[in-house]
Amino acid sequence: MRNISELNTSKRILMGPGPSDVHPRVLKSMATPLIGHLDPEFLEVMDDIKFMTQQTLKTQNPLTFVVSAPGSAGMETCLVNLLEPGDEAVVCIHGVFGNRLADIAERCGAKVIKVESEWGKPINPDDVKKALANCNPKLLAIVHAETSTGVLQPMEEISKLTKDAGALLVVDAVTSYCGVDLRVDEWGIDALYSGSQKCLSASPGLSPVTFSQAAIDVLENRKTKVQSWFLDLTMVKNYWEGAKRAYHHTAPVSAMFGMREALRLVLEEGLENRFQRHKKNHELLRDGLEGLGFEFLVEKEYRLPMLNAVKIPAGIDELAIRKRLLNEYDIEVGGGLGPFAGKIWRIGLMGESATTNHVNMLLGALKAII
Amino acid sequence: MRNISELNTSKRILMGPGPSDVHPRVLKSMATPLIGHLDPEFLEVMDDIKFMTQQTLKTQNPLTFVVSAPGSAGMETCLVNLLEPGDEAVVCIHGVFGNRLADIAERCGAKVIKVESEWGKPINPDDVKKALANCNPKLLAIVHAETSTGVLQPMEEISKLTKDAGALLVVDAVTSYCGVDLRVDEWGIDALYSGSQKCLSASPGLSPVTFSQAAIDVLENRKTKVQSWFLDLTMVKNYWEGAKRAYHHTAPVSAMFGMREALRLVLEEGLENRFQRHKKNHELLRDGLEGLGFEFLVEKEYRLPMLNAVKIPAGIDELAIRKRLLNEYDIEVGGGLGPFAGKIWRIGLMGESATTNHVNMLLGALKAII
Repeated sequence: MRNISELNTSKRILMGPGPSDVHPRVLKSMATPLIGHLDPEFLEVMDDIKFMTQQTLKTQNPLTFVVSAPGSAGMETCLVNLLEPGDEAVVCIHGVFGNRLADIAERCGAKVIKVESEWGKPINPDDVKKALANCNPKLLAIVHAETSTGVLQPMEEISKLTKDAGALLVVDAVTSYCGVDLRVDEWGIDALYSGSQKCLSASPGLSPVTFSQAAIDVLENRKTKVQSWFLDLTMVKNYWEGAKRAYHHTAPVSAMFGMREALRLVLEEGLENRFQRHKKNHELLRDGLEGLGFEFLVEKEYRLPMLNAVKIPAGIDELAIRKRLLNEYDIEVGGGLGPFAGKIWRIGLMGESATTNHVNMLLGALKAII
Repeated sequence: MRNISELNTSKRILMGPGPSDVHPRVLKSMATPLIGHLDPEFLEVMDDIKFMTQQTLKTQNPLTFVVSAPGSAGMETCLVNLLEPGDEAVVCIHGVFGNRLADIAERCGAKVIKVESEWGKPINPDDVKKALANCNPKLLAIVHAETSTGVLQPMEEISKLTKDAGALLVVDAVTSYCGVDLRVDEWGIDALYSGSQKCLSASPGLSPVTFSQAAIDVLENRKTKVQSWFLDLTMVKNYWEGAKRAYHHTAPVSAMFGMREALRLVLEEGLENRFQRHKKNHELLRDGLEGLGFEFLVEKEYRLPMLNAVKIPAGIDELAIRKRLLNEYDIEVGGGLGPFAGKIWRIGLMGESATTNHVNMLLGALKAII
């Protein structure tokens, strides 16, 4: 029989594409003894989380809530609730997560019109305009912060084009949320999902989601049932709002305690201060990495501060160095995905991991190794 | 602006239909600083959980893993991976969760043949036999422990009938797992899901799942893509097994730490001891409740030890008493669902909540109130 002793993990420094380091207050809150998922005190916790999620997303949307599963399930939530078989959906692809959006939209029975750009570059609004003009789009889906490439996608022009075409705007903000400016209402976003484990610095497993009134109208006028029972917002929303708060599934109580505390930390710091902190430490890291011979994948204008994608200099065994970083320094950085596997690193400066101490730890370790 | 202060919950005694009380060792493990979801140390945690889940389910199935979402998502995982549009599925319904199975199977595009029994009674194998004979069933789905009624469904005869019909046996063991005998391999179960928050006494949000080789064969011979990306086992399994351990989604690291410790506690106690403890405290509670004039909904032979469904005696305002139990004694018990709303209570004795102290606390409070 396998001998399984007490959990004994190394004290890692999380500088990959997420999860990020989690504040001790968040860890402590997850160790709070449980209360029931229909306890009036838990409904208060949900209301607190909803309110703080609205604040951090800069939205007044009443249908703002948390999916009881990771960001990928948040992505699926937005698409399965808005798409029906035969619908047309424009999906912008400039990395792994755009591809995932297209895959899910196809599984919903939608006809997917792809707008692609070279990985590492943002989507070109001219291409979006053409695609929207050549179909009857129910929605356009796009990734705000492409975690696989480090690209920050400008949103406002694409939002305007999408509205002009009469389509809903669906946005992946998994990595941007709480790390760079994100304005759901001002930018006209109709459905948005994120994750708990990036710049919010809660533990992974939850996905904040918001739906505009236009998105709710589409949901309420569906001709077919949502194909997922678990993600069906026509039912989930009755657990999050209204007088009766009907049972749907058992919410992840401890994870929600942690998310509540993580949101409190964000609002205590202030969103703008938090964005500045991410930017400042990104610049510090950038200067250090460039001094070591690393080159950024993405043009300066479109770089994510919290996800630094750098090319591996010639002659470096990237896997061996990442292993040394982990084994000798307890520092995790991410490798490349898909066509970038073995070619780039993805260095995260997210939430609690976006500190000068983190930058110095990594740069110091790299100087010693390389 | 809403004033949101530090989390300040009451110290509840959880005797509803789940979540149950969680051991301090499990709470403490969830407060462990995070490691990455692809960290070699986390892959070890996953292997530990897989091994202990196999032990507790009495199965050798290599495809034994944990869905990163609650039991309802585990239910959906089993059905979306095994069913394709046009398939025929026999679904046994003797409560809320049988209905949920039928609903999900229909959302998969399957033709559902329902076998029903009066709520509070088990499914009759004769009815199953007839249903299986009159269709071309790909699977039969049934709830082992119906949390909405307190019925323990005998499995062996129905398993034999299902096998004889050449169908897969899909079992909901959300409430039975770790509380009563459950033998996946011996009973010929092909796909099974449970939840973390019942007799395992981990925090809600995870769903242990196992697939037999016959179920894997069906999965691998699908003609269509699984309709859910998030729950698609053709991809999820590459994160749980094999040499490469490919990224699929970000696992809920802290919840998995907690589940690992909860499983360790189960194996330390021993499964048979744990079943005996549930039985003994159920009997103690039963005697006390009957002394107070409560009558059980379910015949003795089919009663679940961990979910005690009792009828509300005439003249009692059940909601008022449940409120007093919660507000004056911090004790949570569950109300009825669906047709049983207002008519029964569901008193849980699950995992860490299945103790003589819990029984005495509840009986003492009820004696004082009624």
